[in-house]
Amino acid sequence: MTGLFHEDTLLKNTGADGLARALFEVARDLPLICPHGHTDPAWFAQNHAFPDPSALIVTPDHYITRMFASQGMSLEDFGVARTDGTGNAPDPRAIWQRFASNYHLFRGTPTRLWLDITFDRLFGLKQPLSAQTADDAYDRIAEALASPGFRPRALYETFNIEVLATTDSALDDLAHHRSIKESGWTGRVIPTYRPDQVTDPDHEGFARALDQLGELTGEDTGTWVGYLAAHQSRRDFFRSMGATATDHGIPDARTADLAQSEAAALFDRIRRDAATGDDVALFRAQMLTEMARMSAQDGMVMQIHPGSSRNHNRAVFERYGRDKGFDIPVQTEFTRSLAPLLNAVGDAPDLRIVLFTLDETAYARELAPLAGAWPSLVLGPAWWFHDSAEGMRRFREMTTETAGIYNTAGFNDDTRAFPSIPARHEVARRVDCAWLARLVADHRLREDEAFEMIEELSCGLARRTYRL
Amino acid sequence: MTGLFHEDTLLKNTGADGLARALFEVARDLPLICPHGHTDPAWFAQNHAFPDPSALIVTPDHYITRMFASQGMSLEDFGVARTDGTGNAPDPRAIWQRFASNYHLFRGTPTRLWLDITFDRLFGLKQPLSAQTADDAYDRIAEALASPGFRPRALYETFNIEVLATTDSALDDLAHHRSIKESGWTGRVIPTYRPDQVTDPDHEGFARALDQLGELTGEDTGTWVGYLAAHQSRRDFFRSMGATATDHGIPDARTADLAQSEAAALFDRIRRDAATGDDVALFRAQMLTEMARMSAQDGMVMQIHPGSSRNHNRAVFERYGRDKGFDIPVQTEFTRSLAPLLNAVGDAPDLRIVLFTLDETAYARELAPLAGAWPSLVLGPAWWFHDSAEGMRRFREMTTETAGIYNTAGFNDDTRAFPSIPARHEVARRVDCAWLARLVADHRLREDEAFEMIEELSCGLARRTYRL
Amino acid sequence: MTGLFHEDTLLKNTGADGLARALFEVARDLPLICPHGHTDPAWFAQNHAFPDPSALIVTPDHYITRMFASQGMSLEDFGVARTDGTGNAPDPRAIWQRFASNYHLFRGTPTRLWLDITFDRLFGLKQPLSAQTADDAYDRIAEALASPGFRPRALYETFNIEVLATTDSALDDLAHHRSIKESGWTGRVIPTYRPDQVTDPDHEGFARALDQLGELTGEDTGTWVGYLAAHQSRRDFFRSMGATATDHGIPDARTADLAQSEAAALFDRIRRDAATGDDVALFRAQMLTEMARMSAQDGMVMQIHPGSSRNHNRAVFERYGRDKGFDIPVQTEFTRSLAPLLNAVGDAPDLRIVLFTLDETAYARELAPLAGAWPSLVLGPAWWFHDSAEGMRRFREMTTETAGIYNTAGFNDDTRAFPSIPARHEVARRVDCAWLARLVADHRLREDEAFEMIEELSCGLARRTYRL
Repeated sequence: MTGLFHEDTLLKNTGADGLARALFEVARDLPLICPHGHTDPAWFAQNHAFPDPSALIVTPDHYITRMFASQGMSLEDFGVARTDGTGNAPDPRAIWQRFASNYHLFRGTPTRLWLDITFDRLFGLKQPLSAQTADDAYDRIAEALASPGFRPRALYETFNIEVLATTDSALDDLAHHRSIKESGWTGRVIPTYRPDQVTDPDHEGFARALDQLGELTGEDTGTWVGYLAAHQSRRDFFRSMGATATDHGIPDARTADLAQSEAAALFDRIRRDAATGDDVALFRAQMLTEMARMSAQDGMVMQIHPGSSRNHNRAVFERYGRDKGFDIPVQTEFTRSLAPLLNAVGDAPDLRIVLFTLDETAYARELAPLAGAWPSLVLGPAWWFHDSAEGMRRFREMTTETAGIYNTAGFNDDTRAFPSIPARHEVARRVDCAWLARLVADHRLREDEAFEMIEELSCGLARRTYRL
Repeated sequence: MTGLFHEDTLLKNTGADGLARALFEVARDLPLICPHGHTDPAWFAQNHAFPDPSALIVTPDHYITRMFASQGMSLEDFGVARTDGTGNAPDPRAIWQRFASNYHLFRGTPTRLWLDITFDRLFGLKQPLSAQTADDAYDRIAEALASPGFRPRALYETFNIEVLATTDSALDDLAHHRSIKESGWTGRVIPTYRPDQVTDPDHEGFARALDQLGELTGEDTGTWVGYLAAHQSRRDFFRSMGATATDHGIPDARTADLAQSEAAALFDRIRRDAATGDDVALFRAQMLTEMARMSAQDGMVMQIHPGSSRNHNRAVFERYGRDKGFDIPVQTEFTRSLAPLLNAVGDAPDLRIVLFTLDETAYARELAPLAGAWPSLVLGPAWWFHDSAEGMRRFREMTTETAGIYNTAGFNDDTRAFPSIPARHEVARRVDCAWLARLVADHRLREDEAFEMIEELSCGLARRTYRL
Repeated sequence: MTGLFHEDTLLKNTGADGLARALFEVARDLPLICPHGHTDPAWFAQNHAFPDPSALIVTPDHYITRMFASQGMSLEDFGVARTDGTGNAPDPRAIWQRFASNYHLFRGTPTRLWLDITFDRLFGLKQPLSAQTADDAYDRIAEALASPGFRPRALYETFNIEVLATTDSALDDLAHHRSIKESGWTGRVIPTYRPDQVTDPDHEGFARALDQLGELTGEDTGTWVGYLAAHQSRRDFFRSMGATATDHGIPDARTADLAQSEAAALFDRIRRDAATGDDVALFRAQMLTEMARMSAQDGMVMQIHPGSSRNHNRAVFERYGRDKGFDIPVQTEFTRSLAPLLNAVGDAPDLRIVLFTLDETAYARELAPLAGAWPSLVLGPAWWFHDSAEGMRRFREMTTETAGIYNTAGFNDDTRAFPSIPARHEVARRVDCAWLARLVADHRLREDEAFEMIEELSCGLARRTYRL
């Protein structure tokens, strides 16, 4: 072992380490399919150099900053800006030094694994990050970032990315995506239709967003029919810009299938600001079914991400805004919640719904049985807190025996941390190689099957699920 | 490895593979105790040859057909009949070809393991099933089925079955069981009292079933007292036909202990069709306690199977009927739900209740603590979706440390797929051998204990739990 | 293997058995930090010899007696006394014989492991306990207990205990703790403030306890302000006697943050016996926040133990009283429940809250994300039913990847079974050594890190968390 990272990482403990390694030899060279993530299309449109190491790696990654917060450190000391613009940005090198001095906090976490792989592979660092090595690491990363090979488009190519989807507001003009398309660059960066802002009445500025949706589409978003037409119009636009999927982040998985007249009356109450809390929940539930109905028609793959209680720390939210590591999962019910949507449209031949969960108890109990029966349902990969070696292992062990792998969506990295993308795919592939090798060692699979399956798990399932 | 199935399957990865194998040498030859299942007593009464391979293996197995449904294939293409009698039955060989061509979907599932063991052991197939080998496999299975050694009674003996319980409606006349008893055949096929049809007011035809119960028993099922007497009469009849157990499939584990006057009034509302939804749930809850009270008297072992949301796909239910793979688990509470029943009768010396769950979260949290304290409670094996290698491993790991193995009921196959019965017991025994070997390797058990325990897990616990 | 206990117990199956052993060589000699438990301070104050083996080991351990109850045996046959004073105490040797004859029931449980380690190490027994060896074991243990080296203070020293916290009622005069302090003995036995009796209106004798609280402190516990002042007074007294922590056993984790005027009105309704069930739950919820507010001021570490449905078997409770093995876990919600408390005081720099759960589903879903973000939250170790090899392994696998180990509280034994304390710490340390060795074998950690971490897991985290 000459670097931060051993070639056998995550491949041991299989009972068939040699096979695990042989499977990874295949998986390693397959392209990266990235159908769901949060990178910024501006990077690829403008192709500017990334700023300093801290601004690239530390400050925007709430997996990192929340760990420091949990130990009583201040988010500001890691460069997180206050929403009111007060406060001074710390020196990037000071941020990096603080980060490196507390790097031990990440022992045993996937963040540590992703970072070590990235440090070693991408930046050629060979010493463990620590207070002592911080400065040297900073210098080497800063130097790399200044070079042409580390511009966004060059990294996209170096990373062997086949396609990269961003996540975009329903109101976005997709100017950056247009600019990428028109640039002649061969990278495939596509948008995803994320309409939460115009489907969730609890979203700040919902009413204004609906007006804007009307202006953008020329539809009358004061009426239910016009509102649905506006959605269809935006979906068509997104599809014309390359989108193949939609994404829906919601507090729970509740769906509804109201008569259209009832739905129209509900929309009217919402629009007139006369809605109760129940109305708001029911509207979100109804909109999932409406989106599914459109997907059954236009073929956009529908992604459902329920179960996060957002902004749990009110003071952090008020000072720093959203996405600061205080989104905490809650128990999530799927069986009864999805029944209205599924009985409305779940047998439609062109409908595909990818289900994610932050509540692992649903894997074996609800999600695998649902995906193992309904033709439209596919299981998304282990997500967020579960996007880790143990989390992904549990996902396989709790879903495969009921749903098989052919009702799963393959991996997606779901990240805004661009340099970590190859490491995330690599960790997922290693976990899958080890899992397959264990099954072969235990004579539950044949070797030839394992080799077929690793190609599916690495690429095939994601390509087919997302119609890429 | 010369067949579909390696002798070390599921025995590797134990840290003591040799011991795992030695334990399985013992387990392999022990008879099969089958105290809970869904085979058809007519098979053993009539002893006709089984029809073609597809009708035996594919069409009736909803583990298989739902997996094809989940991939957008039609149930009809696998021989599943419409309830209205329309549609043409496909050619059995075409069904088989379709099945074989999609056999890869079962990779990593227990279905695949059971089938491969059955193909290899029972039918002597040595090539993996695929589009290419489908015809040959069909021919060989069809040929076997036509021979006398593959009649139901011969298979019962070949399989080394000691006792086989069927599951029978409270209204069943048990004619097939009578005919088996009177035939002089030495196989022991016994009924189980399953009264859902006459205890759950939500069941289709409940009122008519209650009338029929009255006619069968000569009791007045228009009154609470007569209704209870009718149950006791049927239980006595079932016991006279060899039954040792009852079985209760219910949406949740809720129980109640009403005063008899309240229960009578509730029954009256139900009978007059004046019941609310709450009444219906309360009646089911009360009936669990009444059944437990009778079990405490007559010694019939009570099995409780809660937590399935039946017929989740309405269109499939309307077209094809029940049991088509769309019964999806829901979260299930036990601690508070069972308290009324247990405080009414849970310390009775002759009461035995076997608890099953589709919600694994209850294993370590509720079920093991309950079974590890209440004298009447015993844990049924990992059930349905969890009747798999990983599911059974999790069951042991999450229940043993609190309840030990001596508060568990041993294995039962719970299947209507008769040819798979030996494979199901074999998989369960292999998982237990591997688990025991791991504990010995880790010095948590001595070898002599493991050998005692594998006999208990394979036979002893089931015999004693079910009073066989 | 020459005794009951192999030196490699729990260290195999790591993929790096040698490293596991090397880690345990370090862990074995570290002192025992016992910040949470239920030993009797009278033992250390009076330093009397322990009575007979059954009275020390069998009768008071409800892990043991409930297992016998689960098999239909009577608690009285194991020496458990009726609360009404009727019944005859069985002969201690007969109890022991019955215990030994049924020792196989504990196969695979942690109780068996703790007992075997204790029998081997502390009492020098080398034969497995059984009906045959019972008498000899009894004699040897009885002989040891009569010797000076087995008095409580001597055992404290033999066990290499650094500090031992007891759990004490808010109304306790801490006379035994005072007597220990004044004795000149160097052992550190400290109290813990457990106010359930005066914070939970459902507790028997709540009103009388509040009066007593007023008398003890000179505060007017008829008013909200006086009641809070009385708590602060008792906390100050406990701190003066060495306490560093408080402990709160509650049915669920619900918290509230009422305006003080509302809280005063609520207290008034409770005091006037005019409270509803909702009021009672709300009062408990509010009191958790009040206790947290005081902890933020006085620095006492707050422990929250929710999720047990106490005295599930009413007949056992009525005959034998509390703590007889019939406390059964229930599902427990944390994310929404803790939000009021945390948003009131959760960012306070001196607040530390240790969270325990009996519902493992909360580990990965709620507890690790909460502890991995909020500065005041720390995860307590796997508790009660989960204080076992598999339970502790699951705890690490489900919490580390999100929260790291540095947001966890280290181990505590939480026991009244004094002779088992070293065995409990040893089992926990072995599980951690095996877990760390697995991570190193899988190249997820370096060896030097594992050696640092085992010291933290064994001692450092507990010392720092509990401010010892």
